[in-house]
Amino acid sequence: MVDLPVTKLSWTAFDNLNLMEKAACMCDGGREYHVLYAQQFGRERLDHLGRLATAIRRLAKTKEGMHELQKMLPHKRAMLYFAQPSSRTFLSFAAACQILGMPVAEVRDTSVSSEFKGESKEDTVRTFSSYFDFIVMRTQIDGLAERMAWVLSNSERPVPIINAGSGKDQHPTQALLDVYTLQRSFEERDGIDGKVIMFVGDLARGRTVRSLAWLLTNYDGVRQIFVAPPELQIGEDIQALLRERGVEFRLTEDFDASLREADAVYMTRIQDEWDSVAGESRRINTDRFHFQPRHLDILKTNAVIMHPFPRRQEIDIAVDTDPRAVYWRQMRNGMWIRAALIADLFRCDAMIQSDSVRRCG
Amino acid sequence: MVDLPVTKLSWTAFDNLNLMEKAACMCDGGREYHVLYAQQFGRERLDHLGRLATAIRRLAKTKEGMHELQKMLPHKRAMLYFAQPSSRTFLSFAAACQILGMPVAEVRDTSVSSEFKGESKEDTVRTFSSYFDFIVMRTQIDGLAERMAWVLSNSERPVPIINAGSGKDQHPTQALLDVYTLQRSFEERDGIDGKVIMFVGDLARGRTVRSLAWLLTNYDGVRQIFVAPPELQIGEDIQALLRERGVEFRLTEDFDASLREADAVYMTRIQDEWDSVAGESRRINTDRFHFQPRHLDILKTNAVIMHPFPRRQEIDIAVDTDPRAVYWRQMRNGMWIRAALIADLFRCDAMIQSDSVRRCG
Amino acid sequence: MVDLPVTKLSWTAFDNLNLMEKAACMCDGGREYHVLYAQQFGRERLDHLGRLATAIRRLAKTKEGMHELQKMLPHKRAMLYFAQPSSRTFLSFAAACQILGMPVAEVRDTSVSSEFKGESKEDTVRTFSSYFDFIVMRTQIDGLAERMAWVLSNSERPVPIINAGSGKDQHPTQALLDVYTLQRSFEERDGIDGKVIMFVGDLARGRTVRSLAWLLTNYDGVRQIFVAPPELQIGEDIQALLRERGVEFRLTEDFDASLREADAVYMTRIQDEWDSVAGESRRINTDRFHFQPRHLDILKTNAVIMHPFPRRQEIDIAVDTDPRAVYWRQMRNGMWIRAALIADLFRCDAMIQSDSVRRCG
Repeated sequence: MVDLPVTKLSWTAFDNLNLMEKAACMCDGGREYHVLYAQQFGRERLDHLGRLATAIRRLAKTKEGMHELQKMLPHKRAMLYFAQPSSRTFLSFAAACQILGMPVAEVRDTSVSSEFKGESKEDTVRTFSSYFDFIVMRTQIDGLAERMAWVLSNSERPVPIINAGSGKDQHPTQALLDVYTLQRSFEERDGIDGKVIMFVGDLARGRTVRSLAWLLTNYDGVRQIFVAPPELQIGEDIQALLRERGVEFRLTEDFDASLREADAVYMTRIQDEWDSVAGESRRINTDRFHFQPRHLDILKTNAVIMHPFPRRQEIDIAVDTDPRAVYWRQMRNGMWIRAALIADLFRCDAMIQSDSVRRCG
Repeated sequence: MVDLPVTKLSWTAFDNLNLMEKAACMCDGGREYHVLYAQQFGRERLDHLGRLATAIRRLAKTKEGMHELQKMLPHKRAMLYFAQPSSRTFLSFAAACQILGMPVAEVRDTSVSSEFKGESKEDTVRTFSSYFDFIVMRTQIDGLAERMAWVLSNSERPVPIINAGSGKDQHPTQALLDVYTLQRSFEERDGIDGKVIMFVGDLARGRTVRSLAWLLTNYDGVRQIFVAPPELQIGEDIQALLRERGVEFRLTEDFDASLREADAVYMTRIQDEWDSVAGESRRINTDRFHFQPRHLDILKTNAVIMHPFPRRQEIDIAVDTDPRAVYWRQMRNGMWIRAALIADLFRCDAMIQSDSVRRCG
Repeated sequence: MVDLPVTKLSWTAFDNLNLMEKAACMCDGGREYHVLYAQQFGRERLDHLGRLATAIRRLAKTKEGMHELQKMLPHKRAMLYFAQPSSRTFLSFAAACQILGMPVAEVRDTSVSSEFKGESKEDTVRTFSSYFDFIVMRTQIDGLAERMAWVLSNSERPVPIINAGSGKDQHPTQALLDVYTLQRSFEERDGIDGKVIMFVGDLARGRTVRSLAWLLTNYDGVRQIFVAPPELQIGEDIQALLRERGVEFRLTEDFDASLREADAVYMTRIQDEWDSVAGESRRINTDRFHFQPRHLDILKTNAVIMHPFPRRQEIDIAVDTDPRAVYWRQMRNGMWIRAALIADLFRCDAMIQSDSVRRCG
């Protein structure tokens, strides 16, 4: 059985902790057991997972390498519980499990599980833990993944939970894939340290940006530029955090000027599904924050353009063929980093890395 | 090709048989081929399947053991056809197939199969038998699984059907997991023979209780106590059957007194989805049939508390941490006994048992 | 990377091509890369795929043979994207992938993918290509599969697309399974050449008949008889094509007379889902185009009866037990030919054929 700090706490005691304390509670000797918050990942872990994702990616290029990978976890079963619609995150987790040879079951359409009507969420999730060895969970309910991780940790089968998006607050594996994309983009330029990262769009409500801005504080000398209309600017809480960590940043509406400085431009869409009044977002003109083909002339030659998807009009499709547009590779990175996370969770990291060295040099 | 008694009968001739005769018709030399009724299982089969489930459970503890199990049935394909919503039964069957290395396909949301509109149920099920090697089937239609087993038995591809819940009448694999849980609970107390089993709740409509009460008649000296409000008491048909088999039983409303005698307490929820008038069940006060923490003091120290799930208020969650609460283990037993049933169906039982002896002693 | 003719063309240039030119554009050195149109398949390819399907079918009879097959493609991942409801085509593709050891993911219920709301179809399909190695796609939108094949061919991950039914126009793998069924039915009668094929029912709107009629022009001396009420007769475009290819055919309403000549009778249902006015089809009396038990006396002793399913009243179920009724075998052939197509796509054809010779003689 696992021995996590959280198993020693009542729900009330746990719930009263601050985010950093909670994050530590879900780790087992420095390594995350349940993956719930971006705040669980320090630089060492980010670097380790990035290297592991690359080892997996290289092995996966050949049939023999894939065969090695698929021998890792055929004896474990994954449960993908997606109560909130999602295909991108779902499919990348499914593919990640398949890469590691892991059988997958799913509950995707919430109407399917109407047998569960009248049943508590706790009983539902304990049902999953009865049959499967870990649970990937996406839900529109704030804090539900955290609550379930506490429940399972205090049960006889404390299988790990990976948060694949929980309400408005956290989506840690998206932040991991973003960091991995930056690691790869700058791998021949001394890594992420010292780079200028520019965020554009709906920074108020995008959980992706909030998590990534935090993770970047693990790197030295990174400058962050937040480009958005005032109504959609990055929250006060993130600004306070950046100040506290001594990170240089600025808020601006000047897209073009910022673009000249950026090493990475992180575009996002308007999250109108969170509008408190219908149509609220449509009143905000965001055209001047769209990436147009003409911006390619302004952008540094070695910069990269990212987007977490889905995209609407934020990036003109004519930009797609520019070599600096890495958002398709970024999407595929989601599969690699999720495979790395799962492999690491079940302690296959060392074996994969030695396979990779042996086969791929 | 398989040679079942049912293949020699017209539908009308078959349909006119009584339940015990029908049960025999679906067996192939004493071993069930289609799994449709609890009445197909005698004591010898129950003991065999229980031992096989335990062999699988022990092998599944290690990666090497899982590897042996997954070599059993990769060459067979399972079809899970769940026209009636269910997640627990569905997921445990999916996990059971994965344990045996068997690829799974599913039709879960009935709206998905609207291509089938205007097609007969017979043609739909023969479609499944065209691509898959056995069919797990759950439906709200009484007798449909039975009808389909007759259809397939008289076709060119008579693949086995497992009934995973058919209307109000039968849910045989639930009864099997209940018996397996009792076998395990009493394995150091000379087994199920001579024990006192107490059923509580909606005994009129719970197909689970009806099937289990029947299966327990295979054991010697078992006493059954049915605790329910008069409106929800066990049916006359089951009582007649118990009398015929010489089983000692009683009907009562006295929960506390019964509890003092019980070796196993089988709690159930109110099945209000079968109400003939909406809200009918709500008029019945069932509070006095709920298991409260205070009941733990009354219950024998070596008794067990069971529940087929989903649960509502029948068992207070404070009871969950008592070692006598075996309902989570019972749920997991569903996966093991279903894996055993499938393995046995495809004649992998001897190989699994010898693997288990070799590896686990 | 693959080098298809389509990658050299703009969408407009491609879209202006005629069907035969388009078909050629999707092939890679004479072998189809994307499978979009029946018109991509000439006789040599049809014969090759038929032989491969038979090799797979023979290997699949034993556990050892299945083991060989499942070693073919475990390193590739399939995406089944079914935006239009379908179970038969979906399940046969799923089974085909499982036979080759290929992990499968699916998006079946279109409501599941509502994360994609506001996203272009192009971005959605590129998402699939980010995680998977080929895409099976079914949609109600005419020409969408073709458009997506063009998009992927001009992207960094040009994974193959198999059209599993696109609007009213094409369903090429259905046509392939029909040809394979004819190949098997006539394998001891010198094959399809010189046979009389009779089509019955809704010939105006059945994409199946349209594709098969075309594919049969690859064989010598085949005569085609189209039996339907005038409102549902085969389209002028197909007639023109048959004339151009010098194929002997006739249109008639005389079911019984045609039956005496036929080597194969291809029955179809009324496709009322394409009615432009609701109930339109119901006003047409099609009773005289139903296959009744009495027709078995008229039919040649070595002829075969086919149906693409689902069936309604077109074939009386009493006909099912006649040995000339091959429609259940035809359905199962769909699984074998789809497995052959996928195996061929990934260049496993030679290895499978040599395994089959070695093991099955």
